[in-house]
Amino acid sequence: MFIAFEGIDGSGKSTQLVLLEKYLINRGKKVIKVREPGGTILGEKIRDLLLNFNMNKRSELLLFLASRAQLVEEVIRPSIEKGYFVLADRFSDSSIAYQGGARNLGKDLVEKLNIFATNGIFPDIVFFIDIPVQMAVRRMKEKEKDRIEKEGEDFLEKVRTTYLHIAKSRKNFFVIDGTKDVDYVFSQIKRIIDTMLDH
Amino acid sequence: MFIAFEGIDGSGKSTQLVLLEKYLINRGKKVIKVREPGGTILGEKIRDLLLNFNMNKRSELLLFLASRAQLVEEVIRPSIEKGYFVLADRFSDSSIAYQGGARNLGKDLVEKLNIFATNGIFPDIVFFIDIPVQMAVRRMKEKEKDRIEKEGEDFLEKVRTTYLHIAKSRKNFFVIDGTKDVDYVFSQIKRIIDTMLDH
Repeated sequence: MFIAFEGIDGSGKSTQLVLLEKYLINRGKKVIKVREPGGTILGEKIRDLLLNFNMNKRSELLLFLASRAQLVEEVIRPSIEKGYFVLADRFSDSSIAYQGGARNLGKDLVEKLNIFATNGIFPDIVFFIDIPVQMAVRRMKEKEKDRIEKEGEDFLEKVRTTYLHIAKSRKNFFVIDGTKDVDYVFSQIKRIIDTMLDH
Repeated sequence: MFIAFEGIDGSGKSTQLVLLEKYLINRGKKVIKVREPGGTILGEKIRDLLLNFNMNKRSELLLFLASRAQLVEEVIRPSIEKGYFVLADRFSDSSIAYQGGARNLGKDLVEKLNIFATNGIFPDIVFFIDIPVQMAVRRMKEKEKDRIEKEGEDFLEKVRTTYLHIAKSRKNFFVIDGTKDVDYVFSQIKRIIDTMLDH
């Protein structure tokens, strides 16, 4: 099973991913974590370019996709085939929300490019950890920001709106209220996962 | 005017590009040279990844496209607008021949991805410097080869076949016999350019 966590930075998605990892391991599952961009030797090099170099929005999208293609080929597909639970900190929907929505390249176009990059491999479940932009900005205040995190609140509003828009058209895309305390947020995720595991 | 040189390595395309540059400068034209992958700070970083790291064919194509998108946005488009002759050592047709043809990703698919990456900017003229693969292999024998140059003769045959296939469907794509001496090859290019300049 392939599970992705999505959300704007500061939403708590990485924390929730680690909680799910522990929970699955406790239930005797084999689990592997990946992050985007990165997760392979090539991908980490691409990550460095994405976070630190100036570029136009098309190159930005293409670099995210290049990193994703390598991650799928080298890690995600073989891990799924070996029966692992793959937990991804961001995946294809990040490109739809950030580059498709907030950077205006178009959701449909990015969706098509995702299909090429992933060769048709997509998460079985996506958890979108949703919090208002202002809460994310408050939580991120102390942190030194990378190139994309430096985009302003309007940008993040567009990202969030696009995520919420995706939710309307996809059954396996769950909007999780991320404004509550960590344990309560995880209880929402756990309930969905338990239902899946029991089937 | 935007002119691209295409061909397998060892075809002499870079030599011909320099000859055309000199010829145009002598005729009082403003000329700028670019190379792919590379030609921008981001592009040269991507070039380094492409030549030295292992990767799957989708990531390879996406990295070439990311480099191309930045080159168009940062150099080619502004140069065309300022009235420069842009001479490119490889451009979009390299992706069609190498990744679309030889790596089997499909010519039509790569053509669509090129449109996205270049935002619709394509060369006015393409010179494909054509030589048999065995001649290219002989000429390249002494050189230390990068990751893509290490592909064998079968691969290069597929690249060449795809270039020749492109030639059948595009009026502005000129097949230049590259087996003759440098000056004779250039005379073929010069004749075409002179016709263009006189119009």
